[in-house]
Amino acid sequence: MSDISLIGMISIFTAGITIAIGSVGPALGEARALAQALSAIAQQPDEANTISRTLFVGLAMVESTAIYCLVISMILIFANPFWEYAIAQSGG
Amino acid sequence: MSDISLIGMISIFTAGITIAIGSVGPALGEARALAQALSAIAQQPDEANTISRTLFVGLAMVESTAIYCLVISMILIFANPFWEYAIAQSGG
Amino acid sequence: MSDISLIGMISIFTAGITIAIGSVGPALGEARALAQALSAIAQQPDEANTISRTLFVGLAMVESTAIYCLVISMILIFANPFWEYAIAQSGG
Amino acid sequence: MSDISLIGMISIFTAGITIAIGSVGPALGEARALAQALSAIAQQPDEANTISRTLFVGLAMVESTAIYCLVISMILIFANPFWEYAIAQSGG
Amino acid sequence: MSDISLIGMISIFTAGITIAIGSVGPALGEARALAQALSAIAQQPDEANTISRTLFVGLAMVESTAIYCLVISMILIFANPFWEYAIAQSGG
Amino acid sequence: MSDISLIGMISIFTAGITIAIGSVGPALGEARALAQALSAIAQQPDEANTISRTLFVGLAMVESTAIYCLVISMILIFANPFWEYAIAQSGG
Amino acid sequence: MSDISLIGMISIFTAGITIAIGSVGPALGEARALAQALSAIAQQPDEANTISRTLFVGLAMVESTAIYCLVISMILIFANPFWEYAIAQSGG
Amino acid sequence: MSDISLIGMISIFTAGITIAIGSVGPALGEARALAQALSAIAQQPDEANTISRTLFVGLAMVESTAIYCLVISMILIFANPFWEYAIAQSGG
Amino acid sequence: MSDISLIGMISIFTAGITIAIGSVGPALGEARALAQALSAIAQQPDEANTISRTLFVGLAMVESTAIYCLVISMILIFANPFWEYAIAQSGG
Amino acid sequence: MSDISLIGMISIFTAGITIAIGSVGPALGEARALAQALSAIAQQPDEANTISRTLFVGLAMVESTAIYCLVISMILIFANPFWEYAIAQSGG
Amino acid sequence: MSDISLIGMISIFTAGITIAIGSVGPALGEARALAQALSAIAQQPDEANTISRTLFVGLAMVESTAIYCLVISMILIFANPFWEYAIAQSGG
Amino acid sequence: MSDISLIGMISIFTAGITIAIGSVGPALGEARALAQALSAIAQQPDEANTISRTLFVGLAMVESTAIYCLVISMILIFANPFWEYAIAQSGG
Amino acid sequence: MSDISLIGMISIFTAGITIAIGSVGPALGEARALAQALSAIAQQPDEANTISRTLFVGLAMVESTAIYCLVISMILIFANPFWEYAIAQSGG
Amino acid sequence: MSDISLIGMISIFTAGITIAIGSVGPALGEARALAQALSAIAQQPDEANTISRTLFVGLAMVESTAIYCLVISMILIFANPFWEYAIAQSGG
Repeated sequence: MSDISLIGMISIFTAGITIAIGSVGPALGEARALAQALSAIAQQPDEANTISRTLFVGLAMVESTAIYCLVISMILIFANPFWEYAIAQSGG
Repeated sequence: MSDISLIGMISIFTAGITIAIGSVGPALGEARALAQALSAIAQQPDEANTISRTLFVGLAMVESTAIYCLVISMILIFANPFWEYAIAQSGG
Repeated sequence: MSDISLIGMISIFTAGITIAIGSVGPALGEARALAQALSAIAQQPDEANTISRTLFVGLAMVESTAIYCLVISMILIFANPFWEYAIAQSGG
Repeated sequence: MSDISLIGMISIFTAGITIAIGSVGPALGEARALAQALSAIAQQPDEANTISRTLFVGLAMVESTAIYCLVISMILIFANPFWEYAIAQSGG
Repeated sequence: MSDISLIGMISIFTAGITIAIGSVGPALGEARALAQALSAIAQQPDEANTISRTLFVGLAMVESTAIYCLVISMILIFANPFWEYAIAQSGG
Repeated sequence: MSDISLIGMISIFTAGITIAIGSVGPALGEARALAQALSAIAQQPDEANTISRTLFVGLAMVESTAIYCLVISMILIFANPFWEYAIAQSGG
Repeated sequence: MSDISLIGMISIFTAGITIAIGSVGPALGEARALAQALSAIAQQPDEANTISRTLFVGLAMVESTAIYCLVISMILIFANPFWEYAIAQSGG
Repeated sequence: MSDISLIGMISIFTAGITIAIGSVGPALGEARALAQALSAIAQQPDEANTISRTLFVGLAMVESTAIYCLVISMILIFANPFWEYAIAQSGG
Repeated sequence: MSDISLIGMISIFTAGITIAIGSVGPALGEARALAQALSAIAQQPDEANTISRTLFVGLAMVESTAIYCLVISMILIFANPFWEYAIAQSGG
Repeated sequence: MSDISLIGMISIFTAGITIAIGSVGPALGEARALAQALSAIAQQPDEANTISRTLFVGLAMVESTAIYCLVISMILIFANPFWEYAIAQSGG
Repeated sequence: MSDISLIGMISIFTAGITIAIGSVGPALGEARALAQALSAIAQQPDEANTISRTLFVGLAMVESTAIYCLVISMILIFANPFWEYAIAQSGG
Repeated sequence: MSDISLIGMISIFTAGITIAIGSVGPALGEARALAQALSAIAQQPDEANTISRTLFVGLAMVESTAIYCLVISMILIFANPFWEYAIAQSGG
Repeated sequence: MSDISLIGMISIFTAGITIAIGSVGPALGEARALAQALSAIAQQPDEANTISRTLFVGLAMVESTAIYCLVISMILIFANPFWEYAIAQSGG
Repeated sequence: MSDISLIGMISIFTAGITIAIGSVGPALGEARALAQALSAIAQQPDEANTISRTLFVGLAMVESTAIYCLVISMILIFANPFWEYAIAQSGG
């Protein structure tokens, strides 16, 4: 059973580390943009609508990179083709 | 029992390290946005409502990356499919 | 008894390192927001109430990431499902 | 079956780490550009259209580097020629 | 006796490294807030009371992350459930 | 079959890590130039055309370094001469 | 005697490294606050008393994190429960 | 066949890592120069021609360092004298 | 004699590395405070006495963290309880 | 044939890593000088000639350090005395 | 003779690395204070005496951390109690 | 022949890494001085001669540290006394 | 002869690395102070004498940390007590 | 011959790495001082002589730390007492 276990272990570790590293960039980035948006609103209150709209469209784009990591991480846990192949083999 | 133990150990380690690394980015990021919000309120007190609203919507978005890590970490501890498979095997 | 010991050891190490790394971000972040709040109060004393309220709501949000780490760390020490399974096995 | 397993394991690990590292640069970069855009809009509201247009064309270009990583990561999981060769060999 | 020794050794090492890493963030953070408080007092002496009060409430919150580390560190030395289990086993 | 497997594994790992590292520089760089372009447009709206043109020619040049990495990465997956030689050998 | 020696060695190493790492943060932090205090006194000599008082209360709080490390370090050298258990075992 | 395989593997890895590391410097550098050029055009629109000309001559020089890496990387994949010698030996 | 030697070696190494790392923080910190003090004296010569007094009291506090490291380092060389126990054992 | 292979492998790896690391400094450096030149031209257009001349003489000097690395890298691939000696030996 | 040699080797290595790391902090720190002193003299020539006096008293304090490292380093080479014990043992 | 090979391999690797690391400092440094020179010329065109002269004398001094590395690197490849001794031995 | 060789090797390596690391701090530090001195002279030419005098006294103090490293390095090569003991032993 | 080879190899590696690391600090430092000198000349052309004189005396002092590294490096290649002892031994 050793091969299945190894594939399982590396999947667990990779799933965790992928989302862990992958959340650092978006979190810092979104916060930076958010901080600048607040500063811009304070500076030009009349443009608060334009600024908010641009901010949230942009944040969605930044968030997308975190989503990529989450997707890969979820695939590795719940829809891992290597794991499925290994189980199929060991069951055959 | 060695394979089950190894899967357990790697799950423990990954769960801890995932939330540990994953909390650094959001914590620093949220604090940065918060600091800027306080500065903006001090600069433009009349816009305190708009600033607060934008701040908390934005913070929720940043917090989401920490939540992703927490979710993966919890899945690895309490709903780990690899662990469940290994127990099912050893019990069969 | 070697498997139980290994699970115990990795739990100890992970519990410690999780809270250690997980406290760096919130501590630096909260201090940054706090510093900015003090600066904002000095700049706009009349808004001290609004600033303090926003500060403490925000700090609670930042502190939440440290709490996530503490929770995982405590679970690993006192409610570790892998450890419980291993003891149950060895007692069976 | 050891060779197939090793190829599977290295594919899992590489797929995760590729998107994890590859999301840091674009996330930070896009957020930086977004922050500057918000600042520019606050400074020159009349040019909001030109700024938004340039921003989104540019963001698409930055996002492309994240897409490259996602593509390589997906290829390694779902269309990996080395894995397919190994399965074909073991099935022969 | 080797298993008990290993658990003891990893507990010693983790206890030390947890408080060592965990003291860096709070120490730097508290000092930053403190420095800003002194600057704010020098700038707005009339608000010294409000500033001091906010400072010490905030410092307590930052200090809390150092306390989390100290608590985990002390638990690992003086109330370590894994160590107690191991001694109970070896005494049985 | 071990040699073929090793060449396959190192190709998989290198392909992933090449594009992962290679996307950091261009992503950060392009975002920096883009941010400056937005700032320049806000400052000198009449020169928006000259600025945009120079920006996109320059971005293409920066993107070229990411393309180099993608090309090497693709060659290693789909047109790897070492892999082809190894297959030819094992088939002979 | 090997187990006792190993516990002794890891205690020695951890005691040293704990205070070494643990002194970096407080030393840099206290110096930062001190530097700001001197700057504040130069700027607002009339508030020298308020500033000094706040400084020394704050420094005591920062110093506390260094004390935590020193305490753990001293416990590991002079009141180490794992070491005492090991000696008791070997003497029995 | 082991020696040929090892030479192949180290060539694959080096080719990838060379262009990966080698693209970081030029990408960041070119973007920096580009950003400054845009800023200079916004500041002195009448000199746009002189600035563009100097920019592109300079960028070519910076790009040359990326080209050096690409050349070495390509040589290692397609014209590697060590690989050719090893094949000649094994064919003899 | 191997156990005694190992304890001796780890004591030597830890003693050196403790004071080496432990001197970085205080040295940089004290110099920072000193630099600020000189700047403050140049700015407000009439307060030179107050500034000097606060400086030297503060420096003593920063120096204390270096002293902690020196003390641990000296204890490890000249009053190491683990070493004394080991010698007592080997002499018995 | 193992010794020749090892010399070949270390030559391949060193050639790649030498130019990879060696291109980071010059690329960043040249770009910095170039950026400053553009800024200087925008500030003092009348001195564009003097600035360009000094820039290109200086860039040549910076480029020289990249050339040193390329030369060593090329020598290691195409005129490596250690490799030639090893081939001569094995052919003897 | 192996134990004596090992103690000798670790003493040599630790002595070197202690003073090497330990000289970085004081050198950078003293230079920082010195630079600030020169700046202060240029700004307030009439206070040159007060500044110089404070500078040299402060530098002595910073230098003390380098001296601590040198003392430990010298003790490890010329008055190492572990080495002396080992020689005494081997001579007995 | 193994000893000669090892000396050859370490010479190859050291020669490459010496010039690679050794080119980073001078390249960045020369570029910094060059950038400042261009800025100084733009600021004080009448002193262009004095500035250029001082620049090139200084650059020669900085370049000297790169030359030291190149010289050591070349000695290791073409005039390596350890290699010559090893060949002389093996030929004897 | 193995023990003597090992002591020799560690001495060679430590001597080199000690002066290498030990020269980084003083070189950067002295240059910083020197740069500030030049700036101070340009700002206050009448105080050039006082500034130069303070500079050279201070540089001597910074240089002293480099000298400490050189002294330890030289002692390890030419007056190494561990090496002398080992030779005396092997000659006995 | 293995011991002589090992001493030779470690000497080669240390000689290279010593000058490589040792050239980073002086190169960056000298360039910094040079840049400031050019800036000072542009600011105060009448003091160009005093500035140049102070610059070159200071550069000589910074260069001295690079020379220390070169001297140790050369001693390790051409006047290495450990190597000479080893040759003398093997010839005896």
